[in-house]
Amino acid sequence: MSGTLYGLGVGPGDPELLTLKAVRILRTVPVIAYPAPLEGDGLARRIVAAHLPGGQTEIVLRMAFDPTQPPPEAAYDRGAAEIAAQLDDGRDVAVLCEGDPLFFGSFAYVLERLAGRYPVRVVPGIASPMACAAALARPLSARDERLVIVPATRCEDDLAATLAQCEAAVVMKLGRHLAKVRRVLERLDLAAGAQIVAWASHAEQKIMTLDEAERDGVPYFSLVVTRRTSR
Amino acid sequence: MSGTLYGLGVGPGDPELLTLKAVRILRTVPVIAYPAPLEGDGLARRIVAAHLPGGQTEIVLRMAFDPTQPPPEAAYDRGAAEIAAQLDDGRDVAVLCEGDPLFFGSFAYVLERLAGRYPVRVVPGIASPMACAAALARPLSARDERLVIVPATRCEDDLAATLAQCEAAVVMKLGRHLAKVRRVLERLDLAAGAQIVAWASHAEQKIMTLDEAERDGVPYFSLVVTRRTSR
Repeated sequence: MSGTLYGLGVGPGDPELLTLKAVRILRTVPVIAYPAPLEGDGLARRIVAAHLPGGQTEIVLRMAFDPTQPPPEAAYDRGAAEIAAQLDDGRDVAVLCEGDPLFFGSFAYVLERLAGRYPVRVVPGIASPMACAAALARPLSARDERLVIVPATRCEDDLAATLAQCEAAVVMKLGRHLAKVRRVLERLDLAAGAQIVAWASHAEQKIMTLDEAERDGVPYFSLVVTRRTSR
Repeated sequence: MSGTLYGLGVGPGDPELLTLKAVRILRTVPVIAYPAPLEGDGLARRIVAAHLPGGQTEIVLRMAFDPTQPPPEAAYDRGAAEIAAQLDDGRDVAVLCEGDPLFFGSFAYVLERLAGRYPVRVVPGIASPMACAAALARPLSARDERLVIVPATRCEDDLAATLAQCEAAVVMKLGRHLAKVRRVLERLDLAAGAQIVAWASHAEQKIMTLDEAERDGVPYFSLVVTRRTSR
């Protein structure tokens, strides 16, 4: 009998934002797998470090981190093959996923290679927009508002059309797209109420205005929250 | 010195989807507060029941549950006053929130009455769209897609305009709005790929097609997931 493939949401960064279910599986699963840069452990592995019992097999999906490029297919092919070999041998494998596995997550790339061949269980995790709203103590959305979540990589016209239509918005993965996103927010009169959170829930979490972000720069893991109605 | 107001996300229903942080605060806070129907404990209180140490003060925000009506202002006024009295006496109060406190959550109604007067800390929780995606083992969104989350209470034209623009969508709180939502999905050629999840992560969780949902009906706590790209 083959093992079960777990997509394990490990949350936005604070290890205390792991769920009880994620911790239980981490402590008992014989194999963990996770993406990591060419050197070092990677974020997902660092988030769970304190909960690992030791002695587990670790499959590291090594890949260059370049948000301007499509996902590295070869790295996912190799990783999926290694995971499949463990599952074929009857061992459960937990793929560690920053945030939530199915919300803009790299778990989709593992799933599309292995779905249908093995039992799959997904454990949801705290996603970054919720961690940012918590940092700001500010509602993302309420009542009958439309909340859109859009990556900053979209072109300026797409961003403007979407933010014009929805009452509440989160633009993710700001990084080098900040100037473009700022232009959109100003065009739509959303700039004054916008707040930026970098590294939500991490020790280095930072809350910024657009001016501060422009002056200091923002990392890839930052997002801007806007809402058309009064707070 | 006044107490701290905690907005405590308790997740979608499965008590194992509480975070470690939520459990720690639940075990140590002297006062909990939660919305509940006119009789009974309410969902948020039931989710955390196993983690309560006993002996805590409980503030119950009693209100008739009627999704067709605006939030009962008087009930929130009374609840906020009771919470404020505890905070004034220096006791921390944790307001239990189904899902995430700041994502379409009733915590906004408490916050708007007490923000600025007391220290506020928010602990994010697993929101229902992520729990539904986990139940379906299906990505909500990936790469540069726009994901919109919209309550089914919106009018048919609003729903259609929003779902036409965004590659991925979640329509929440289906209940008696199912026929309207179905018409929108059919108009946009999204009906075939749509999946409905009721009571995500609860013991009574149910996954349905649109046909099954129409035949059997759906509860208020159900939502439909659609995505324009191939899965």
